[in-house]
Amino acid sequence: MAGEGQNLTRIGLAGLAVMGQNLALNIAEKGFPISVYNRSTNKVDETVERAKAEGDLPLFGFHDPEAFVQSIQKPRVIIMLVKAGAPVDDTIKTLSVYMEKGDCIIDGGNEWYENTERRAAAMVDLGLQYLGMGVSGGEEGARHGPSLMPGGSFEAYKSIEDILLKVAAQVPDSGPCVTYIGEGGSGNFVKMVHNGIEYGDMQLISEAYDVLRTVGKLSNEELHEVFAEWNKGELLSFLVEITADIFTIKDDKADGYLVDKVLDKTGMKGTGKWTVQQAADLSVAAPTIAASLDSRFLSGMKSERIEASKIFQAGGVSDTFADQAVDKQKLIDDVRQALYASKICSYAQGMNLIRAKSTEKGWDLKLGELARIWKGGCIIRAVFLDRIKKAYDRNSELANLLVDPEFAKEIVERQSAWRRVVCLAINSGISTPGMSVSLAYFDTYRRESLPANLVQAQRDYFGAHTYERVDGPGAFHTEWYKLANQLKM
Amino acid sequence: MAGEGQNLTRIGLAGLAVMGQNLALNIAEKGFPISVYNRSTNKVDETVERAKAEGDLPLFGFHDPEAFVQSIQKPRVIIMLVKAGAPVDDTIKTLSVYMEKGDCIIDGGNEWYENTERRAAAMVDLGLQYLGMGVSGGEEGARHGPSLMPGGSFEAYKSIEDILLKVAAQVPDSGPCVTYIGEGGSGNFVKMVHNGIEYGDMQLISEAYDVLRTVGKLSNEELHEVFAEWNKGELLSFLVEITADIFTIKDDKADGYLVDKVLDKTGMKGTGKWTVQQAADLSVAAPTIAASLDSRFLSGMKSERIEASKIFQAGGVSDTFADQAVDKQKLIDDVRQALYASKICSYAQGMNLIRAKSTEKGWDLKLGELARIWKGGCIIRAVFLDRIKKAYDRNSELANLLVDPEFAKEIVERQSAWRRVVCLAINSGISTPGMSVSLAYFDTYRRESLPANLVQAQRDYFGAHTYERVDGPGAFHTEWYKLANQLKM
Repeated sequence: MAGEGQNLTRIGLAGLAVMGQNLALNIAEKGFPISVYNRSTNKVDETVERAKAEGDLPLFGFHDPEAFVQSIQKPRVIIMLVKAGAPVDDTIKTLSVYMEKGDCIIDGGNEWYENTERRAAAMVDLGLQYLGMGVSGGEEGARHGPSLMPGGSFEAYKSIEDILLKVAAQVPDSGPCVTYIGEGGSGNFVKMVHNGIEYGDMQLISEAYDVLRTVGKLSNEELHEVFAEWNKGELLSFLVEITADIFTIKDDKADGYLVDKVLDKTGMKGTGKWTVQQAADLSVAAPTIAASLDSRFLSGMKSERIEASKIFQAGGVSDTFADQAVDKQKLIDDVRQALYASKICSYAQGMNLIRAKSTEKGWDLKLGELARIWKGGCIIRAVFLDRIKKAYDRNSELANLLVDPEFAKEIVERQSAWRRVVCLAINSGISTPGMSVSLAYFDTYRRESLPANLVQAQRDYFGAHTYERVDGPGAFHTEWYKLANQLKM
Repeated sequence: MAGEGQNLTRIGLAGLAVMGQNLALNIAEKGFPISVYNRSTNKVDETVERAKAEGDLPLFGFHDPEAFVQSIQKPRVIIMLVKAGAPVDDTIKTLSVYMEKGDCIIDGGNEWYENTERRAAAMVDLGLQYLGMGVSGGEEGARHGPSLMPGGSFEAYKSIEDILLKVAAQVPDSGPCVTYIGEGGSGNFVKMVHNGIEYGDMQLISEAYDVLRTVGKLSNEELHEVFAEWNKGELLSFLVEITADIFTIKDDKADGYLVDKVLDKTGMKGTGKWTVQQAADLSVAAPTIAASLDSRFLSGMKSERIEASKIFQAGGVSDTFADQAVDKQKLIDDVRQALYASKICSYAQGMNLIRAKSTEKGWDLKLGELARIWKGGCIIRAVFLDRIKKAYDRNSELANLLVDPEFAKEIVERQSAWRRVVCLAINSGISTPGMSVSLAYFDTYRRESLPANLVQAQRDYFGAHTYERVDGPGAFHTEWYKLANQLKM
C-alpha cells in the first residue's frame, strides 16, 4: 500500500463493482500506479487480491477515504464507477472534502448528462474539475480496453490523456478508442446515444433470428453457421460474433440449447429510454431505437402476452403462421440485407440525434471521430463504423447517413430484399418492428411529397393553425367548414 | 359592465385569444354571467362586442385586473386560457393578489401536468384552490360545447360543476362531456394523452389517404366519397368527417383542389412529444403515437427530403412505384379495415399510458368514463369511443383493449386486410409508419414467445445481466464466452 513515506500513485478509482475493478486493473496493467477505494471494504481487498493474482499490478487498496485521496499525487484525479444518481453525489461528498483546488473527479458511469453538468458547476465553486466519461465495453472492455467518451473540462482531460490513450481499446490504423468529446455533459450524452444504438442493433439481430428460426425453420446449429458467416462480411461486429457464439451453447440443466431455455423477457437500465425522450425533445425521428425500447417493454409483459396469445388463438389466429415454403438460402441472404439496411437507418438516427444536441448545446461534436472511437472496445464495435467514419470524412455536414453516396448505393442494392423480409414477416404473423420502422423511415425520408398536407389541412380546419402552400411563400388559413357547408347546400 | 353596486358575476375568464373568447361566450350563453379580462385590452372589447352581437349575452369586460377579480361573486372562480408555461405563471401572479381564501383558479390550457401540480401546491399557501382542466374541441368546441377534463381539488370542481355540466358538449344517452378526472395534474395529463391519440388518428387517416391516392389512384372526388361513406360506419368520427369535407374544397388561387396545394409540412405544439416521453418513462409501448410524432418531424424536413428524393431517384428508386393494377373497391375496403384495426392499437396504447400514470400517481382514473367524455366535443370524438367505454364497462381491469372480446373479434376479422395494406404500401415504396407499427404492436402483444430470449442472452454474455429460464424460477448467469471458446478448441 502507498502509505506514509511511500510514493504517491498516479490516479485513484472509487467504486469497485466489476466494472470498477476491471478498469482499475487495466489502468494498473498499463503502468499507472493506482489507488482504489470502495465503501464496502471487502471489494477493496478483493481488488487488491486480483491485482496480485493478475501479475502483481501496481494497485493499492484503501479502506479509508481520506487515506485514499492523500495517496494520489497532485493534482489528483479520481475516477468514480458507481451507480448513476444519488450514489454519485454521495461519493463526491465523501471524497471532495479531502480534495484540493485543481484536483479532478471523473464520473465513469451511465449518468444523465444534466446531472454531470449540475455537478461540474458545483465543483467549480470548490475549485475542482469534473469530467463525465462514458465507458463502453462491458466487463471485458473495462479490463482489456474500453471505448472511452470523456466530456467536460478540456484541461482535466489533458491531464489524464496519457492514461486514457493507453487504457482504451487500440484499433489498428485508427488508434486508441478515446477522444475528447466536448464540453459539459457531452461525454455522457454520446454514451447514452451509443447505448440507444446498441438497443437498436440487438433488436434488429433478434428480428433476423426470429425470421430465420420461425419462417426459415433454421436450427440453432444453422443459426450459428449463418451468424458466423455474416461475421466475416459487412456485418462483422461484436454483437453478431457473440450471437454466433450463443447458438453453440448447450443447456447444462436439460436437453437442447441454452438460448431456447432463456426466458423472453428483456431487462433495461435507462439509457435507451433517455435516448428516445431526447429524440422527441430535439425533434429527431429515431423510430428504430424507439422500436427497440418498446420491444423490451412488451417482452416484459410475458403473462399478458400468454393471455393474449390464447385469446387470439381461440379466435383462429395462431401466434405465427409461417407455413410457407421458403428457399432457405435466399431467405438467409435477404435477411442479411434487411438487417444491414435497417442498421444504416438506426445509426443515421443516432448520429442525427447527437448532432441536434451538439447544435443545441454548442458542443461542436465531431461525428466521424465518434464513429472512430466506437470501432473498438465498445459493444457496438463493428467494421460498419469505419464506413460511417468515412462518410463523415467525405462530408462532415452530411444531412443523413442515408444520403452518403456509399450508403445510398448499399441501400439501393438491398431495398428489394428488405421489403421482401418485412412483408414475409407480416404475412407470417411475426413482428419485425425494428426492420419495419427502419424501412418506413427510409421511405419517408426519401420522399419528396408526404401525405402531411392532409394533416396540416385538418389542423387548419379545426384549429386555424394555418398552412403553407406548395406554390409560394406565406401562411394561409381557410374557412374549410364554412366552404364545405356551402357546397353541401 | 358589472361595476360598483351592480350584481356580481358568477365566474371570470382571463385570456381572450379565440379559445378563451369562445369559451366565455359559451358560458355566458348557458346563463352564467361572466367577467372577462385580457392583458391586451382590445381583446376585451372584441369579446364584449361579440357577446352583444351573438345575442346580448351576460358577459362583462374589464381592462383592470383588480376590477375584474372584484366583479366576481365569492368564492371566486377564474378560468385562465393563456399559453402554457410562463404566461400562466404571469396571469396567476397578476390575479392572485386580488383573490381571497377559498377562491379558485382554473388553467384551461394544454399545460404540462407537473406545472399544474407545482402551482396547486403554491396556491395552498395562499388559501386558493386550483384546477388544471383540459379543454378539447378547438374553436368550435369551445364555443358550442367542448370536452372538459378538470383535475385537481375535488371541492373546487364541485363548486363549478353546474357550469361545466352545461357548458360541455352534450351527447344523447351518455350525458355531458365532462367528469371530475382526479387529483393533481390528472386533468392535464389526460388531455395530453387525448392529444397524443389525436396525433395517431390524424396520422392513420393520412396514411389511408396516401395509399388510396398513390396506389389506388383515387381522385379527390373519389376520396371525398370514400371518407363520407366511411363516416357512416365504424369510422364515424369528427376527423373522418372533416377529411371528407377537405376533399371538396377547390383552390381559390389556382386550378384544382386546395388539399393538393397545401404544403406537406406539419406543425405541432408539444403535447404529442410529452405523450411519447411519458410513455417511455412509464415503460408503456406507444408506437402508433410515436410514429405520428416522427412523421411530423420528418414532414418538416422538406428540403432534406427533396434532396434525398433526387439522390435515390438517380440511384433508380422512384419516390413511389405504385404501378400495380389494383381492384379499387377491394383496396378501399382493405384500407378501411386497416385503419380501424390500427386505431384500436393506438387507443389501446393511449389508455394503457393513462392507466400506468394513474397507478404511479394513485389517481384512480376511470378509463371508461374518459372514453365517455371524449364521445362529444373533442377532436377525437367518434362512435368508436362508445365501444371503448363498453369494453371498460365489461371489464374495468381490462389489460389491453386488444383483448376485449369485441375488439379482439373485430381485429381477427380485419387482420388479413390490414396485412395486405401494409405490404402493398411497402411494395409500392410508400411508408405507412402508423399502420405498420400498429400491426407490429398487435403481432408482438399477442405472441407468447418473442425473440427477446436472444437479447437477454446477449446482455448476459457481455454484461452479466443474468436471465430467467422458461422452465422455472431464478436468475441465472452463464459464462457464454468461456463456454463458446472451449467449444472452438
